[in-house]
Amino acid sequence: MSYSAAVADQDARYYRTDPGTRPSEENGCRVKGLIVNTEKTIIAPATPPGEGGLAVVRLSGPSSEELLRRFFKPSGKFPSLDSHRLYHGHLVDANGSLIDEVMAVIMRSPRTFTREDVAEIHCHGGPLIVQQILDLFIDAGAILAQPGEFTLRAFLNGRIDLAQAEAVADLIHARSVSAQRVALNQLQGKLSQIIRIYHRQVVDLLALVEAHIDFLEEDISPPQPDVLCRSAEDIIEAIEDLIAGFNSGRMIHDGLRILLAGKPNVGKSSLLNCLLGESRAIVSPSAGTTRDIIEESLLLHDLPVRLIDTAGIRHTDDSVEQEGVRRAREKAGSADLVLLLINADQHPDQDDLLALDSCRDQKLLLVINKQDLSPSVQLSSPWSDYPRVFISAKYRQNIDGLIEAVRDLAGLSGGADSSESVMLYERRHYQSLLQAKSCLQRFISGCRAGFGFELLALDLRDTLRAIGLITGETTPDQVLDRIFSRFCIGK
Amino acid sequence: MSYSAAVADQDARYYRTDPGTRPSEENGCRVKGLIVNTEKTIIAPATPPGEGGLAVVRLSGPSSEELLRRFFKPSGKFPSLDSHRLYHGHLVDANGSLIDEVMAVIMRSPRTFTREDVAEIHCHGGPLIVQQILDLFIDAGAILAQPGEFTLRAFLNGRIDLAQAEAVADLIHARSVSAQRVALNQLQGKLSQIIRIYHRQVVDLLALVEAHIDFLEEDISPPQPDVLCRSAEDIIEAIEDLIAGFNSGRMIHDGLRILLAGKPNVGKSSLLNCLLGESRAIVSPSAGTTRDIIEESLLLHDLPVRLIDTAGIRHTDDSVEQEGVRRAREKAGSADLVLLLINADQHPDQDDLLALDSCRDQKLLLVINKQDLSPSVQLSSPWSDYPRVFISAKYRQNIDGLIEAVRDLAGLSGGADSSESVMLYERRHYQSLLQAKSCLQRFISGCRAGFGFELLALDLRDTLRAIGLITGETTPDQVLDRIFSRFCIGK
Repeated sequence: MSYSAAVADQDARYYRTDPGTRPSEENGCRVKGLIVNTEKTIIAPATPPGEGGLAVVRLSGPSSEELLRRFFKPSGKFPSLDSHRLYHGHLVDANGSLIDEVMAVIMRSPRTFTREDVAEIHCHGGPLIVQQILDLFIDAGAILAQPGEFTLRAFLNGRIDLAQAEAVADLIHARSVSAQRVALNQLQGKLSQIIRIYHRQVVDLLALVEAHIDFLEEDISPPQPDVLCRSAEDIIEAIEDLIAGFNSGRMIHDGLRILLAGKPNVGKSSLLNCLLGESRAIVSPSAGTTRDIIEESLLLHDLPVRLIDTAGIRHTDDSVEQEGVRRAREKAGSADLVLLLINADQHPDQDDLLALDSCRDQKLLLVINKQDLSPSVQLSSPWSDYPRVFISAKYRQNIDGLIEAVRDLAGLSGGADSSESVMLYERRHYQSLLQAKSCLQRFISGCRAGFGFELLALDLRDTLRAIGLITGETTPDQVLDRIFSRFCIGK
Repeated sequence: MSYSAAVADQDARYYRTDPGTRPSEENGCRVKGLIVNTEKTIIAPATPPGEGGLAVVRLSGPSSEELLRRFFKPSGKFPSLDSHRLYHGHLVDANGSLIDEVMAVIMRSPRTFTREDVAEIHCHGGPLIVQQILDLFIDAGAILAQPGEFTLRAFLNGRIDLAQAEAVADLIHARSVSAQRVALNQLQGKLSQIIRIYHRQVVDLLALVEAHIDFLEEDISPPQPDVLCRSAEDIIEAIEDLIAGFNSGRMIHDGLRILLAGKPNVGKSSLLNCLLGESRAIVSPSAGTTRDIIEESLLLHDLPVRLIDTAGIRHTDDSVEQEGVRRAREKAGSADLVLLLINADQHPDQDDLLALDSCRDQKLLLVINKQDLSPSVQLSSPWSDYPRVFISAKYRQNIDGLIEAVRDLAGLSGGADSSESVMLYERRHYQSLLQAKSCLQRFISGCRAGFGFELLALDLRDTLRAIGLITGETTPDQVLDRIFSRFCIGK
């Protein structure tokens, strides 16, 4: 099979017009090079590994109920197990030996997370008990779920779309409340709703264009290029609105990359320690720490931050140190924001200017340290051109003001509002939208150049395919593979 | 208050004649120096910490339902939440902001683990989400549960007795399937049933004795000392049966302490590595590893073992090495079984005899290594007096035979049977029964010496108190404290 034929084949397999239609291949779907056979019943622990009061083992698939009934003996007389009702009872193995005293529930399709029959066993939270329960059901024919397979099934069965599936993992791994809220909105389908609106608008436009192709012989007046262009421009405008929020979304999701810059001994380490002291949560030294660059992850008033401390940037003849300076400049280029430290008690000198030069193309906040020594320094150009904040790292003065200034500059102030609005934060979604936009721009150019409707229709179909990548309607194997490999087992 | 008055006061507080009667002090009970106020509603995560598909947060207490209803919005129209039924919905904070999409269940008293109203929230398994849910409910008046407090409430409310409560923690922490089964039997109340039989028998005996005290003036013939003694002897016999299994139970629960002995270079390290290779589960180097003694925890065919490897025991003039030898001998004394290694390819020499001397009072298995070199060594006395097994540590030959011999000698073969029988494994229970036995022996001596019935009744009351320690009817604060401090939070 040629490459393009393979791609066409793949597209055909994954193109889902109706969310309820599952891309089936004998009831299976190729993901991770394996057939996800939804005729099989999967099992996995749903709760984190380790010891606790309670662990939950979850089954999903057509045999869930039959398997549960085989090994679960309810305490009372319950001829039938009601759906969604927790029963106390005993889990016994094939020989009738007791494995654990448990609660169990059967949730019948379609009102479940996977839209399949789901059974849950709530056992004592011991790793050995969980292992025995898994062994029991796997011996009886259940198969161990792959990481993300429950969510994958929810997606394949049309319970959620791909953007919502991605949000499940983001929600679990969220490092800040803002990141969690953004993921939760996406899980609720708020992004998908917007994407579906774009999709419908493009479909409408395509219908207009295709109607003219199909009925070319008949006496229908062709759509006016102006009308087509205006429609496409409206869609582009809406897409641009969504794209505009990507940077904020990405910062909330991944954390803000902040570079600490300034000449040697200006107080960068003191500031770093000061901010670490302020961080009330996740703080871990980075694995990438080198001789020259220290990275720290911290949470500043719910803003996850990746703080990069470089070797002091200064003029030097030493080749090793020059290498350090080069790296620091490189790092500066990848930062979302640079905090440039200068001292309040002395006028900026040549070394300060050199530090400014190394990062003046960046978004920059001037942090004037040692305000305790000289509370009102006078700054002239170029220093007066930058937003500034006065602090004392030593006495921990105005650190709140610094954090507020960081949020402002990053465009993340007023965080409460963002909890309700939709925010684009996945690079994959961003790139799909950029692609959709460029297809629409090609369509507009084609319209204006008087291209035939067959060619214009192709541009619109490309747009639909780009948009469909987000919700998973047109997403190929390897992308699904990458997405679900981020999941933990049991989700 | 005098010491004895304090003890009496304590006893009065904890003595529960009816399992439904809670030792109350304004609805509270002193444990861990705090009042466990069962009027309060407690909350804790029930699942292990970390990231997973699912986390469960559990509430118990009178406000569970009211608190759940305040923040949980079911998806459908459900004017009432049925008990034990899982509802899909949204958890929102006091401002109506969404915290997570969850499943929730209310389980109404008394059909719950604590016998109180219990509510569970099944949320996405992210640590931040769990933290927010805890914060939400704690702000609304719930209090964070202490470790073991759910089980403590189940105990205080008469849902389970103390021996069953202890089994909950043992079950979760079990390191082997046998240990888990033994704990499960205890959780099912099998030990408690037996203890209650003893209790009833002693109560019957006491009634006989007390009847005569109360009605001394009347013309009732006093019970015959012979009859009383025989009854007490029957109870002692039953207690001794149970006590006899303690050693096996303890080994299954705590692991078998096995000492590796033998002269230097006889192959102890090879055997250790060989057994480590056989171990399919929990293997951790001990914190107590010293220069002279290495301890390893391993699981040999489901038998948890603590393997102690000592510095070779041999005659030495070096004072440092003598210290090592002294420690090794000391260790040998605390082992359940000694594996004494000798070589198959040479007759035992003086150093072998010295090694034998150091542990000949122990239960000993002769392990004849290097069978590949000399498969049939002839042994004379004293070597022929001990059970032996031939192996080759180097070629991993007959390691299964070695493990089987270890099980046999430890009295743990036929493990399948033990899964159904009751096994005493807690030292606390063992000591309580020893105490009960000695009180009964005192009673018998008193009977034979013709002591008054008032004195004899005291012995029987002491017996009851000793027996009651096991099920928690007579257990003082500090013991409860020690027991529940072994629990994880959320259980």
